[in-house]
Amino acid sequence: MGEGGGEGTVVTPEAEFPALGPEELGSLRRIGDRWRVARREQPEPAGELPVDPTLGRYRRRPAPSRFGRLAPIELFRVEEPDELVATEQANLPGSRLGRGLVRLRRGALGPPLNSAAVLYERMRKLVALPVLSSDLLSSVAYGPEAMLAVLVLAGGAALGLSLPLGALLVLLMVAVGVSYRQTIPAYPHGAGSYLVAGDNLGAGAGLTAAAGLMIDYVLTVSVSVAAGIHAITSALPGLTGLTVPLGVLVIAVLLAGNLRGVRTAGNIFVLPTYAFIAALLAVLGAGFLQAAGRGFTALPAPDVPAAEGLGLLLVLRAFSSGAVSMTGIEAVSNAIPAFRPPEWRNARTTLSWMVAMLVVLFASIVVLIHLDGLVPRSGETLLSQLARTSFPTGPWYALVQAATALILLLAANTAFNDFPRLLFFMARAGHAPRRFLHMGDRLAFSNGLVALSGTAALVFVTFGGHTEALIPLYAVGVFLAFTLSQAGMVVHWRRRRGARWRRRLAVNAVGTTLSGLVLLTAAVAKFAEGAWVVVVAVPLLVLLFHRVQRHYRQQHRALALRPPGTAQTSPGAPRGTAAGDADGAPLPAEGQEVPQQIRHLVVVPVARLNRASLRALAYAASLGQPTLAVHLAPNEVEADRFRGQWEAWGDHLRLETIVSPYRAVIGPLAHYLEALHASRADLVLTVIVPEVVLRHRWHRPLHSQVERRLRRALRELPGVVVTSVPVHLPG
Amino acid sequence: MGEGGGEGTVVTPEAEFPALGPEELGSLRRIGDRWRVARREQPEPAGELPVDPTLGRYRRRPAPSRFGRLAPIELFRVEEPDELVATEQANLPGSRLGRGLVRLRRGALGPPLNSAAVLYERMRKLVALPVLSSDLLSSVAYGPEAMLAVLVLAGGAALGLSLPLGALLVLLMVAVGVSYRQTIPAYPHGAGSYLVAGDNLGAGAGLTAAAGLMIDYVLTVSVSVAAGIHAITSALPGLTGLTVPLGVLVIAVLLAGNLRGVRTAGNIFVLPTYAFIAALLAVLGAGFLQAAGRGFTALPAPDVPAAEGLGLLLVLRAFSSGAVSMTGIEAVSNAIPAFRPPEWRNARTTLSWMVAMLVVLFASIVVLIHLDGLVPRSGETLLSQLARTSFPTGPWYALVQAATALILLLAANTAFNDFPRLLFFMARAGHAPRRFLHMGDRLAFSNGLVALSGTAALVFVTFGGHTEALIPLYAVGVFLAFTLSQAGMVVHWRRRRGARWRRRLAVNAVGTTLSGLVLLTAAVAKFAEGAWVVVVAVPLLVLLFHRVQRHYRQQHRALALRPPGTAQTSPGAPRGTAAGDADGAPLPAEGQEVPQQIRHLVVVPVARLNRASLRALAYAASLGQPTLAVHLAPNEVEADRFRGQWEAWGDHLRLETIVSPYRAVIGPLAHYLEALHASRADLVLTVIVPEVVLRHRWHRPLHSQVERRLRRALRELPGVVVTSVPVHLPG
Repeated sequence: MGEGGGEGTVVTPEAEFPALGPEELGSLRRIGDRWRVARREQPEPAGELPVDPTLGRYRRRPAPSRFGRLAPIELFRVEEPDELVATEQANLPGSRLGRGLVRLRRGALGPPLNSAAVLYERMRKLVALPVLSSDLLSSVAYGPEAMLAVLVLAGGAALGLSLPLGALLVLLMVAVGVSYRQTIPAYPHGAGSYLVAGDNLGAGAGLTAAAGLMIDYVLTVSVSVAAGIHAITSALPGLTGLTVPLGVLVIAVLLAGNLRGVRTAGNIFVLPTYAFIAALLAVLGAGFLQAAGRGFTALPAPDVPAAEGLGLLLVLRAFSSGAVSMTGIEAVSNAIPAFRPPEWRNARTTLSWMVAMLVVLFASIVVLIHLDGLVPRSGETLLSQLARTSFPTGPWYALVQAATALILLLAANTAFNDFPRLLFFMARAGHAPRRFLHMGDRLAFSNGLVALSGTAALVFVTFGGHTEALIPLYAVGVFLAFTLSQAGMVVHWRRRRGARWRRRLAVNAVGTTLSGLVLLTAAVAKFAEGAWVVVVAVPLLVLLFHRVQRHYRQQHRALALRPPGTAQTSPGAPRGTAAGDADGAPLPAEGQEVPQQIRHLVVVPVARLNRASLRALAYAASLGQPTLAVHLAPNEVEADRFRGQWEAWGDHLRLETIVSPYRAVIGPLAHYLEALHASRADLVLTVIVPEVVLRHRWHRPLHSQVERRLRRALRELPGVVVTSVPVHLPG
Repeated sequence: MGEGGGEGTVVTPEAEFPALGPEELGSLRRIGDRWRVARREQPEPAGELPVDPTLGRYRRRPAPSRFGRLAPIELFRVEEPDELVATEQANLPGSRLGRGLVRLRRGALGPPLNSAAVLYERMRKLVALPVLSSDLLSSVAYGPEAMLAVLVLAGGAALGLSLPLGALLVLLMVAVGVSYRQTIPAYPHGAGSYLVAGDNLGAGAGLTAAAGLMIDYVLTVSVSVAAGIHAITSALPGLTGLTVPLGVLVIAVLLAGNLRGVRTAGNIFVLPTYAFIAALLAVLGAGFLQAAGRGFTALPAPDVPAAEGLGLLLVLRAFSSGAVSMTGIEAVSNAIPAFRPPEWRNARTTLSWMVAMLVVLFASIVVLIHLDGLVPRSGETLLSQLARTSFPTGPWYALVQAATALILLLAANTAFNDFPRLLFFMARAGHAPRRFLHMGDRLAFSNGLVALSGTAALVFVTFGGHTEALIPLYAVGVFLAFTLSQAGMVVHWRRRRGARWRRRLAVNAVGTTLSGLVLLTAAVAKFAEGAWVVVVAVPLLVLLFHRVQRHYRQQHRALALRPPGTAQTSPGAPRGTAAGDADGAPLPAEGQEVPQQIRHLVVVPVARLNRASLRALAYAASLGQPTLAVHLAPNEVEADRFRGQWEAWGDHLRLETIVSPYRAVIGPLAHYLEALHASRADLVLTVIVPEVVLRHRWHRPLHSQVERRLRRALRELPGVVVTSVPVHLPG
């Protein structure tokens, strides 16, 4: 991850346009010198441009545009000489349908945002807290329940183990929280596991952490939405049948909200998170008051028959299920750049608040469940039972459930913040498709958002929206990322040292060990229950990331600028012909040509003589290069007829007829061009094809679309350039 | 249908290349003169070609081809000066996968056939009879049963009506048969309903007949296959569950057989048809012998309770159901060109034989069913019951059923012969997509064959392969075509007169009246049972054919050659600018340009400087036309950085930077080009885009494919030509 770490983790729209390295810049200079030398020998070919490229003349003499308005829209402003700035209008597509769709989208998601606005979309702490903590805090709505649901398998008596297991988990939370507190100032531009593990442990570890995180984000959405819907159906059992469509709807709404952009999305989430914290504190307060009334004696739990023996494996499963309460703790470290400056300090403070609240809520819930003697039931969540116990009557119960459902549904939003950002970093390092670098017109990473919601919806539907079925998959990815991130920090302190590095190393080492133990526990104890999916998926994803990077590396190597004269055979050229032309001089590789080295032959395939083909012929002839027309005939009769027409026209260009007795067109033409190229390897063949532009999509099956198939066949050939001359049909 | 009728109905591969009319040829000459005049003013731009277009040099100096073989394959032969003939090898696509697929197809369907072989693929009568009659004769396997199945609804007593209804149907068969006998010599090049009705009653009637026929052909395949499978499951009830997959398999085998070509397909069908006729005659002979033994007294039918009253509607439904026995009678008249010469005489003789056999078989079956007192049952066909009665034991029953199944499954083949030929005629007249003119490399109309089998398989699967459910749809289409064809002949005789025209007119008038009555009966009596589908589909199809023709007409009008100077605004040009350029001189319309009128501006969009973009820039500069490079930047920072690189390169071409603050690329670029074009409407903008050619399909999502989207956006603009300069990546 050396490349990624070096560039910092600021998210910018220029990331799509990486700068040239000093070597490439040097090559560029030397290539330019060759152009200059070559140019001196010939008269200036370009000469004066026939138009003003800054459109000055266009703006003085308004002409109606294709949109049919009489006044021209100001599509471009001149900012500096030779630089235009496109206005919002210039983004609209040309077709009426396309413009309608864009307007519709803008109506729903807001007007496009200027690239210059990217810095202002930052969150202050009071907004960041609810946005980033909703995932972590909402975990207490299903974490303790997941733990007890495993313990209860060994009978009601085993539920007593929840107290020591809960204490262990609190310890884990504090350890991991402190560990992350140290990571944030060390990586002030973004301390995601992918970056930290990659920076310190190597690219493979970074990609493994990334794979774990990606699975974690997808599952965060699926699990949170599933648990949120469950909170609703606990209060309104009539809605149980609608679980799947409701969940998909929620995911769609979250997608739309996030496509609008970060700040707006943040504002939506402020109220529910604080409401949830308040409601939960009220439930816990009331519960503890009741418990205090009876002298904190635990009520006896209903007798549940044991389904399994109380073995070590069961305890481990319960522990790792409870550990899902910690999911979301990493959210802050990924999102440092989204804070207002000073970013890292604000982020660290937010993290401390979050962990403190998590510990308080989690511990109180576990203790109160024990005191009230509650047992997991399939139809109703434990949190709902707690609320019913604390507020048996009145609107309070409904309020608590509503707040729980809301925060769970919105917790998924954390993943919507982090997943696209992770993909951005990965894409910048070449590990993910480059399209994840592109910021949509609302400055959001639209492609990443769509990818996340699509995958999460798929997982949600596949598992029928059952929280319990999804939990076993959840812990592995999260703790994989935790472990690698903290192990990376251990290496970081050993390398960099700095003030109090031994103490810091120790803190991160404890975090690493504990997270690693949970990871192992989760992977082994829940392997058969679903963790195997993750165990299989992580290496596959890592392999995919590697293959993606290899492709980009190869492409970069093939397209990188090299000093002229560097011998390299043209990759696409046929063997044997690449070595040299007729005179034995070496041919320049693709992309190393100097204009004066290029020899042209223009080839125009003509099926019949009409305005379209005559337009292509006129265009070809106007280029002033040697031109050859080619006609393919199914038999001699047609060939002779066509030659007759050609002579009637005046035989202005050289015509070659090819009889294709098996009636194929593309194959013989491609082979013919290949043969021409083989006879003079230094030639560039420009194939000029008339392309009839259809007005309606349904007309497409009425045309053979030979141009399209021809283009596809010819693009494989070296030295063949395809030019489409459009001919427009009336309405 | 004037155009179609005038050209005769010979099927030729040249039909894809229609000849120019005298007017267009005249325009072509005058256009050519203008090129000559313009050319004299300038030095010859084309000059000597740098290669020998007949590949003479290539063939003397063998070079390894892209296939990696050391010896060159002889892809082209020189037949005359300036004419090459492609060999079979030249049809192979360039990619390894493509070549493998072609070889596989050729292994299954045979080697490609030369266009010159088209005349020899003709049938002699003894082959034509089974090929064309399998549809008609096999109809007796389900026609009588369909009639009785309706009658039995009114109870066992109503079955006695089968004799008078059968007699009426025999009368109808003879009348329609004689009527068609008269049509064949009148239209010796193909007497399909589409041509006859179109020629005499106008294009609308022809298209209506064509729509009816197309539905008929599709249903012929579905019904025959369904009845054939039913014959099998009558003998082997265990296979009933496999009806649908078996039917789809049979349709696929028929498709493959027909893609091989007509003659081969014919040979497959000789034996089963004759075997069916022999088997049926044996069953009938044995049955009548048994009946003679008891003095031709009818056995009492089992008592069936009446489900409906015996009303007129029921009798009409029974009659029109029985009329499906006549489907396929039109096969010969469509297929006249497939006969050996003298085509029409051989066709007429074959028709007479067929009708005679139909009448014998149909009448005998109806009578024998009555004599044996048989009643339709759901599990077993009536023909199977007849065979069991005649041959209660021994292998004879199995043989009869096998022959019946085989002929039914192959009867579908008639449609495979006629459907593509009908589409060929329609495509030639512009009523159907032009791709149906194309003969595949086995000289079969592959596109039509694939369309037929796809639709038939869809219908078969939709109706679950139930013959009874399909029958109500069947009669309407057939009798619509019969009626229109014979009505056309009435008009024909009245117009042309000739020898004995009154008698001939009378014969056809009787045929028209009877067919028309059956058509009405079928449409009304079976409307609710399924005929409504056809009643709705026919006008929709006719509308579609009209729309298709309108599109082709518009296209032809737009692309037809016109004498130069004919003022016509360029159809794609923006309003206002089409009127003239800056000097007020009229601009030539698209396709009317003379090379010397064309003014060029070459525009190269450059996203980043690498070998791909430098290749595009070198290509652009080498054209020797004014050239402008355009860069789109997301913000000022990136724009300045790019300009720095451009200057480092040497600033060889004029660069225009456009800041697109909303990060869109396609929209602003298209608008910019449009604005440039608006400022000088006589300019042709050649946009040169580097196109990175990927080696693997899975790499595609890793690239933004801006070129492709750009090409799509720019092809709508007038005066913009797009050139793709391919850059090949190594493996």
